[in-house]
Amino acid sequence: MPNSSDLREFSALAHELAEAAGAVQRRYFRRPVAVDSKVDDSPVTVADREAEAVMRDLIGRRFPSHGIFGEEFGRDRESAEFVWVLDPIDGTKSFITGRPLFGTLIALLREGRPVLGVIDQSILKERWVGIKGRPTLHNGSVLQTRECPVLSQASLYATSPLMFTSPIDRQGFDRVAKRARYPLFGGDCYAYGLVAMGFVDVVVEAGLQPYDYMALIPVIEGAGGHMSDWAGRDLDLASDGRVIASGDRRLHDEILALLDMRSAV
Amino acid sequence: MPNSSDLREFSALAHELAEAAGAVQRRYFRRPVAVDSKVDDSPVTVADREAEAVMRDLIGRRFPSHGIFGEEFGRDRESAEFVWVLDPIDGTKSFITGRPLFGTLIALLREGRPVLGVIDQSILKERWVGIKGRPTLHNGSVLQTRECPVLSQASLYATSPLMFTSPIDRQGFDRVAKRARYPLFGGDCYAYGLVAMGFVDVVVEAGLQPYDYMALIPVIEGAGGHMSDWAGRDLDLASDGRVIASGDRRLHDEILALLDMRSAV
Repeated sequence: MPNSSDLREFSALAHELAEAAGAVQRRYFRRPVAVDSKVDDSPVTVADREAEAVMRDLIGRRFPSHGIFGEEFGRDRESAEFVWVLDPIDGTKSFITGRPLFGTLIALLREGRPVLGVIDQSILKERWVGIKGRPTLHNGSVLQTRECPVLSQASLYATSPLMFTSPIDRQGFDRVAKRARYPLFGGDCYAYGLVAMGFVDVVVEAGLQPYDYMALIPVIEGAGGHMSDWAGRDLDLASDGRVIASGDRRLHDEILALLDMRSAV
Repeated sequence: MPNSSDLREFSALAHELAEAAGAVQRRYFRRPVAVDSKVDDSPVTVADREAEAVMRDLIGRRFPSHGIFGEEFGRDRESAEFVWVLDPIDGTKSFITGRPLFGTLIALLREGRPVLGVIDQSILKERWVGIKGRPTLHNGSVLQTRECPVLSQASLYATSPLMFTSPIDRQGFDRVAKRARYPLFGGDCYAYGLVAMGFVDVVVEAGLQPYDYMALIPVIEGAGGHMSDWAGRDLDLASDGRVIASGDRRLHDEILALLDMRSAV
């Protein structure tokens, strides 16, 4: 772990980054913006690009030796001890349709492991902050995931059924969703924030990139929850994009057993 | 149409109902509430019941001759000239998972046809008001749906893929979703509000009840949009629960052709 005076500085910068990205988002939200398509056919706007650019600029000025891995502008100094992993707008489709459930995701990795994570919703003014080894805060209040030992009682979120593109992903998710008390859709990073708050029991997703999940790890774990890939392994930069975030270890284990991907590891 | 002084009074009452239901919702939102299951296995809470009770009470005191049709407490005087159709929390699953996209739905029917509709989101403080023949307002500002002539350019919402329970519903929806530019999930009534605002092009759903769709009709139509069932017919109390709400007539017609249910009428 970084020492506590470094962590204080890193945390202060993370708040600054969230403020700066949020200011960009508020300037463009529910205003006409051109929507471009990326190689993977996902949408991107000037708001995504400006929000990431302003964060990269702040990091570069404050900690020029740190690395940066951002969704829109890629990787700089990725072998540095500290690397910031940025998603300027997680949930661009929510953003362009006027739905205030997108978020800014900011993670700080040390030696490839997240030590700090922020989820910021700039329209609703909600900010989750997780720091490894400390309790997660939501707008300054300590969070705790809730107990939910079995899937048959669980509220389950996934952003979209269409994110499960391979047969193995779709069949795995369907097995889980069929047994959940309330399978629900839509939400991107916001759903993970609700797990940390104890209002949602689990999120099961696939096809995610490191900038989609790195910031979530300290937030979920600092609230007493659990994150892994579908085989139960810790998430890292080389993970396959399959993610489970749950509030209760017993529920997590039930879902891992249903997904049955541990034998394939 | 009711005369304009009656409409003024009805509209003032509709605002009062939204305020009263919203106060109940804010009291229970993100607090521990017991979740009961209804006959159809959908969740209901004390917040749903209290929000409807307070609205029924206000209507009964102000217009005792009016009918009421509410999701939780059923039908009173349903053959009256004027009938209020109420959903105290549309999106109870969003409500119980802490996601502020549920809404209060308030419709006033005259002879079975909606003349007034309100969508209220009490946490985000957003209110859509539609009155037949007048422009729809969102927090007092006039709304206009946007042009989107073809499905291949459209943002499409549905609350959940699981709402399409019959093969005909699922296959119809899949045909439409496959051709949409951005098929998105989650949102209940909020997605219809986004169609009225011109940020979303179309919502296609099934399994709805009159209290789910009646309030949406004046909101969508007063913003220049279109609502019908999947066969293109106007929605009424006897509709089959299949609903399309779109911002552009050409898009509406393309989707009706894809659903291909007009021949079955």
